Amino acid sequence: MPWIDLVTLLAVLEFLGMVVLVGRARVRYQVRAPATTGNEHFERWFRVQQNTLETLIMFLPAFWIAAHYWPAMWIAPIGLVYLVGRVLYLVGYVRDPRSRTLGYLLSALPVVVLVALGLAGAIRSML
Amino acid sequence: MPWIDLVTLLAVLEFLGMVVLVGRARVRYQVRAPATTGNEHFERWFRVQQNTLETLIMFLPAFWIAAHYWPAMWIAPIGLVYLVGRVLYLVGYVRDPRSRTLGYLLSALPVVVLVALGLAGAIRSML
Amino acid sequence: MPWIDLVTLLAVLEFLGMVVLVGRARVRYQVRAPATTGNEHFERWFRVQQNTLETLIMFLPAFWIAAHYWPAMWIAPIGLVYLVGRVLYLVGYVRDPRSRTLGYLLSALPVVVLVALGLAGAIRSML
Repeated sequence: MPWIDLVTLLAVLEFLGMVVLVGRARVRYQVRAPATTGNEHFERWFRVQQNTLETLIMFLPAFWIAAHYWPAMWIAPIGLVYLVGRVLYLVGYVRDPRSRTLGYLLSALPVVVLVALGLAGAIRSML
Repeated sequence: MPWIDLVTLLAVLEFLGMVVLVGRARVRYQVRAPATTGNEHFERWFRVQQNTLETLIMFLPAFWIAAHYWPAMWIAPIGLVYLVGRVLYLVGYVRDPRSRTLGYLLSALPVVVLVALGLAGAIRSML
Repeated sequence: MPWIDLVTLLAVLEFLGMVVLVGRARVRYQVRAPATTGNEHFERWFRVQQNTLETLIMFLPAFWIAAHYWPAMWIAPIGLVYLVGRVLYLVGYVRDPRSRTLGYLLSALPVVVLVALGLAGAIRSML
């Protein structure tokens, strides 16, 4: 399923981009490893990356299982919503942590939908 | 393999539940983003989630590979032990971090067993 | 693909080893749960594990997708470079956080190569 693979790799690249941005923030705000605290702006970049890690571990399995039971042309676009939601989350969080909600919902909602589609597919296939 | 998919999605949902509980703890103990420290009770909920993230990244690949080489009716129940172990880990940790050991072992042991079964399957298939 | 499964399980075991080492460092440097800060040497072990978690979530999907489109005898050795890179990262970081760069590059570069191979495979398969 090349479209599913493509969206998966884009999600990996998006996360890699955040890893690079945290590295840059480490230099800019002079937060020396192993510390991850001490500068509020660095912590925003760091938390964006950490939260994306937490979301990615849910998104990927749910995305793959949903794509196993439903057509890729339905599932791949849900993955694109996740990808865009994560960008909005980053932009919102770095500006002001209180404005991270929209991006968060736009990336958490696809996960919930994919889990529901996966559960429906797996249970239907058992019956 | 719908049973393997079902347990996978339950593990994702369990982790999602922990994400939600950390969000609630953030409000209750007034730990404002991007901070993740400053209140011992918040930190317990946060560490439960983080530790589950670390365990999930080992559980899922090992679970899938073991299920590739062995019957799902053996492997899926091992996944259920993991799911229950994580609940006990949460309950123990939040009450008192020193009482997290039983739940930890009940969720780490399935990972070790699944890795061993996966290695046995892969090596047998090479020979 | 038993070789791909084998390298995947070795990456899981390598991460499990880091989890165990962080547990040992927690005892040795007397950093009590839920704290993850307070001792610079503990924090080095902890950061090695956290960074490996972040890298593993990128490595595994990219590794699996690349192995779907290209021969395992090309892809599995790239996984071995990742495994060695992570060991060098650990050794370098624990000695001195500034000497973590070589190991980091040796484990990040395989991820980039695997993502590129996966993208090439998926896009070629669409055309």
